[in-house]
Amino acid sequence: MANFVFFLKNVLVVSLAMNMGLIWKIRHDNEETLAYKWSSWGNIQQKLHFHGFCFNGEKNNRVEKDAHGSKTTPILATTSSSAAPSVADGGESPVIINLDHGDPTMYENFWKQKGEETTVVTSSWQHISYFSDIKNVCWFLEPGLMSAIKRLHKVVGNAVTEGRHIVVGTGSSQLYQAALYALSPHNASGPMNVVSAAPFYSSYPLMTDYLKSGLHKWAGDANVFNKQEPYIELVTSPNNPDGFTRQDVVKGDKGILVHDLAYYWPQYTPILSPADYDIMLFTVSKSTGHAGSRIGWALVKDREIAKKMTTFIEINTIGVSKDSQNRAAKILQAISDSCDHANQTDAETFFDYSYKLMAQRWKEIREAVNKTELFSLPNFPLETCSFSGRTFGQLPAFAWLKCEGEVDDCESFLRRHKILTRGGKHFGASMNYVRISMLSRENEFKLLTQRLPAITC
Amino acid sequence: MANFVFFLKNVLVVSLAMNMGLIWKIRHDNEETLAYKWSSWGNIQQKLHFHGFCFNGEKNNRVEKDAHGSKTTPILATTSSSAAPSVADGGESPVIINLDHGDPTMYENFWKQKGEETTVVTSSWQHISYFSDIKNVCWFLEPGLMSAIKRLHKVVGNAVTEGRHIVVGTGSSQLYQAALYALSPHNASGPMNVVSAAPFYSSYPLMTDYLKSGLHKWAGDANVFNKQEPYIELVTSPNNPDGFTRQDVVKGDKGILVHDLAYYWPQYTPILSPADYDIMLFTVSKSTGHAGSRIGWALVKDREIAKKMTTFIEINTIGVSKDSQNRAAKILQAISDSCDHANQTDAETFFDYSYKLMAQRWKEIREAVNKTELFSLPNFPLETCSFSGRTFGQLPAFAWLKCEGEVDDCESFLRRHKILTRGGKHFGASMNYVRISMLSRENEFKLLTQRLPAITC
Repeated sequence: MANFVFFLKNVLVVSLAMNMGLIWKIRHDNEETLAYKWSSWGNIQQKLHFHGFCFNGEKNNRVEKDAHGSKTTPILATTSSSAAPSVADGGESPVIINLDHGDPTMYENFWKQKGEETTVVTSSWQHISYFSDIKNVCWFLEPGLMSAIKRLHKVVGNAVTEGRHIVVGTGSSQLYQAALYALSPHNASGPMNVVSAAPFYSSYPLMTDYLKSGLHKWAGDANVFNKQEPYIELVTSPNNPDGFTRQDVVKGDKGILVHDLAYYWPQYTPILSPADYDIMLFTVSKSTGHAGSRIGWALVKDREIAKKMTTFIEINTIGVSKDSQNRAAKILQAISDSCDHANQTDAETFFDYSYKLMAQRWKEIREAVNKTELFSLPNFPLETCSFSGRTFGQLPAFAWLKCEGEVDDCESFLRRHKILTRGGKHFGASMNYVRISMLSRENEFKLLTQRLPAITC
Repeated sequence: MANFVFFLKNVLVVSLAMNMGLIWKIRHDNEETLAYKWSSWGNIQQKLHFHGFCFNGEKNNRVEKDAHGSKTTPILATTSSSAAPSVADGGESPVIINLDHGDPTMYENFWKQKGEETTVVTSSWQHISYFSDIKNVCWFLEPGLMSAIKRLHKVVGNAVTEGRHIVVGTGSSQLYQAALYALSPHNASGPMNVVSAAPFYSSYPLMTDYLKSGLHKWAGDANVFNKQEPYIELVTSPNNPDGFTRQDVVKGDKGILVHDLAYYWPQYTPILSPADYDIMLFTVSKSTGHAGSRIGWALVKDREIAKKMTTFIEINTIGVSKDSQNRAAKILQAISDSCDHANQTDAETFFDYSYKLMAQRWKEIREAVNKTELFSLPNFPLETCSFSGRTFGQLPAFAWLKCEGEVDDCESFLRRHKILTRGGKHFGASMNYVRISMLSRENEFKLLTQRLPAITC
């Protein structure tokens, strides 16, 4: 009982310190974006409810000291949009690094170099109507975004758009749900099975089942699915969380495939040929880094499926923000422009910049991991990218890190070292693994590569 | 059989003409927003599959003539954002007027007068992150929008925001679904009943049941709901479609109320006091007319409910467009500014402009309806608005028109006269009624008020 009271006190102290730290940050860094855990405070607090760890041998940490009144240092690995971050590592002041989410703030510095060619100006009378283009199956798709999407896929060579309908979504999450709605029979006796090969994107089960839909249900790892029933198989390639190129795995004849190609861009993987599947999902969050705009798109071969997906989005949100669509259109066009004129100017293209940064980060994290026996990372075969002509192995947006040796729960282990990650169990995989975002701002990534080799227990 | 073939030919001819007309419009009016039916082409075509009508005694119409090759006139009551519309009524060229949807293009002219104070400029590095404010229950709510919402409610006096959590949504449709998710028990033996007094907003049943959720189900007209089971009652006030002020009607003790206050603004209804309910839904689509931005908000008293609503939106779309949130914030602040300085400048405030326009339109539609015995409109009691000091009756965003006499199906009757409306059955009401949008652009509204009194059969 005494232990329990002590635990509760610790929880209270951590919680108070978090609030104090946050108030300080908000007062001092108005323009800051705090790269932290989404999912509500409850989840953040849950992540921090540790009361024993071994970082540098300390039994108390900076958060707790602050809560006792000495200082009001932020507890988050925050990074400022307008000023260099002041976080520091080592010694008595380890900060928490949150790499649980794939928040693509890594690209911010590239976009800061850009001017008018990527700036949107919107007057208050523009885009007032619900409608964008009523001749289109997807009547709320802005024509400018449609053109920009088709052009960029042509420039990069990563997807076929000819003979496809484009459906825009509020991020690709909404399009995933739209696809399930469109592909599940509405008069069946039971819900449609939805599967994906483990390790699979951790949100698939949740997005499939959160409304207890009678249309579809999560049926788990595609590798072990053997029911003689219709199914939808999600094929994520390159895969989230592990970065590998994927094909469908269920050996059945009753399946419908949805290809999630969020990471099929030349900063993450060699582009081998234009993807040519029935339903392909993309998003600006991962391609250009504009997660806050919530714009995704689906390339859909079948007109009826595209119509049903459109109907889902119509019922769900009556369309998709036109402000964000037009902003995304401008940014995609600017990327295509820069690729088209790459040989005529000194300016680095977006895909050059992002490829080099990803390659550098993967070099650094591999060096960090190689300094210790505690962890390992996947290796990828070399292939030649048809877009850039470069030969390289995958440079995934996430590091799928394995805790070697006697560590059973890699997420908890790293949490004790103030590195927040997402554990393997969320992906239908072993708890020996964690997913670590590689897309954070630079200082957080540096802290990660400094801290990993220093971990000894 | 011969009749059926003739019908099919007519359908084909209408369909071809629509496509030709649209291509013409798109080529000639790049900037145009076509105020038309959403819901996909299928629905539009369904709406137009008439093959006999009595407009001015004609048996054929302009659309069919065009399809036979003489001209390529648009078939829609289109209005240009950049040029005066060229549509004309009467004689041989009646155009189709689509007033099925409440597309709030009426406000466009007001916003065209505005300059920098309502223009947003967004650089490509801004709002990249998923996160807006992690200290907030709704972590994807932009702080600027939160301030703007609170201020506007204070200025107008239409809702209490003190002690409320604000949850932003991709329009209020998403917030409706978020509220159902938050209020329905997740471990109950069966789905929660959802009711609203007829005539109710036609999208409520669809939004409740489209995923065959095990959490909630549409249980129909609240006036006749008498199950001894838990329920959620939607109270829409002023009501869509009929404009009346509403209170909850179910006489049970197991109910939870959600107040949809999309139209509780001083251009539609006298503001009597700040609304002070547990869950209140608002949207910019109807308050300022920016439907294309897809921004709504909920004022929520209970923190746990607000958290669950946030979770719904997180799973559904991982937040809400930051571009649209920041645009909405700027527009709401400009409205508040103009109200605060209303006595110091000659500039008309948004609510003055919109009130006068609504009052004028209601005067005109009542005059039109009074010229014929075929139709009637509801009457509303006079009340004094605490915001404007004016005494007036409701000026709803929709006219709830009744076909008097021997017309059983008012929607079909008006469709034969090329006025597209939404029939009473969609609202759980008699087919004698239709809902007509009062928020269209001026020329469409003029056509309506010219055409209604001319209808004789």
